[in-house]
Amino acid sequence: MNKKENISNSVIRRLPRYYRFLRDLKENGISRTSSSELSQQMGLTASQIRQDLNCFGEFGQQGYGYNVDYLYSEICRILDLSRKSRAILIGAGNLGKAIAFHMDFENSGFRLIGVFDRNENVIGRQLLNLEVKSMDGLKAFCGEKRPEAAFLCIPKESAGKLAEDLIRYGVKAFWNFSHYDFGLSHPGVAVENVYLSDSLMTLSYQLKEAAK
Amino acid sequence: MNKKENISNSVIRRLPRYYRFLRDLKENGISRTSSSELSQQMGLTASQIRQDLNCFGEFGQQGYGYNVDYLYSEICRILDLSRKSRAILIGAGNLGKAIAFHMDFENSGFRLIGVFDRNENVIGRQLLNLEVKSMDGLKAFCGEKRPEAAFLCIPKESAGKLAEDLIRYGVKAFWNFSHYDFGLSHPGVAVENVYLSDSLMTLSYQLKEAAK
Repeated sequence: MNKKENISNSVIRRLPRYYRFLRDLKENGISRTSSSELSQQMGLTASQIRQDLNCFGEFGQQGYGYNVDYLYSEICRILDLSRKSRAILIGAGNLGKAIAFHMDFENSGFRLIGVFDRNENVIGRQLLNLEVKSMDGLKAFCGEKRPEAAFLCIPKESAGKLAEDLIRYGVKAFWNFSHYDFGLSHPGVAVENVYLSDSLMTLSYQLKEAAK
Repeated sequence: MNKKENISNSVIRRLPRYYRFLRDLKENGISRTSSSELSQQMGLTASQIRQDLNCFGEFGQQGYGYNVDYLYSEICRILDLSRKSRAILIGAGNLGKAIAFHMDFENSGFRLIGVFDRNENVIGRQLLNLEVKSMDGLKAFCGEKRPEAAFLCIPKESAGKLAEDLIRYGVKAFWNFSHYDFGLSHPGVAVENVYLSDSLMTLSYQLKEAAK
């Protein structure tokens, strides 16, 4: 089904949106859709949508459109959402807690198996049925439970050294809320940055431009 | 100073990163930098950096490099960070609270002037010296205090109708954590989406690819 070897980053970034729209359609009992329907809902052109979905093989049939169930399950497969990769959360402060409560990890491809913090006041507390553990136990935990991903909700200052450690312990993917830049120094490691303050600064620029 | 009228979105998205790096340099008492130094720290090529910064005028001088203070204050000006646009937070649940505690609004171009929720258990509580108000008072508040931006930390289902209302009340910019898609229906309104679950699904894909 992988027609093209190198799917562009921008197509990959749109797949979760398709996935969410298709899930909504499924939940509303709709079994068939078209690129023009998706276009209206998603604010992309129909031809863009056809191009995007063609990257992964011939999902659509002319005159019929797309089978919602099939397209949904294919995108689910491409994004590897049913795998539930083992993940740990580092940092159980305000942001870490909010992420833990807010996110539907299981429907996003991950399963949270451990939470770590360095703050004595937080260690030992429960978060989503997991006890917050001390960072001292991180190495042993990784050796035993083999987490594949780490969600970094810690300040930039601690993130660089910690990331190095985690990569050595076998972690292959980072969901990075710290402002640490992984840069180009870790090839083969998957990094998804969520730079909240960058996003807010971009909004500040856009607001200025919109007011012109 | 605005040499080019249309600065590409991708350049704008990199500016906050430049801003953060320059702030670090300033804090470390460094007054001069070069595109090759920035390149090493940011994981971009030096020529990319020169191109980016040239969009806004001739910041650099050959042989001297960039004056950190000047470049910092120019990017600050371009992003309009000193303006402190009036913003309200809608949704004081886990995510809204975390955003409020975690973010340095004042250094990102905004000032939080109101917090709203529809949950009776939350209304009346204090958040960052602001009392969480009922949504019933939203219209009157906007008429009086004229917030320019809204941070939406509410479920998708409520976001569409609310966004329409807020635009009618004069809100010009949305920092959107809900999974509502503004699409193309609101030209002239600035929207910055933070789709956390999309980001996590993208990481799932990347992890699969990295493991190949």
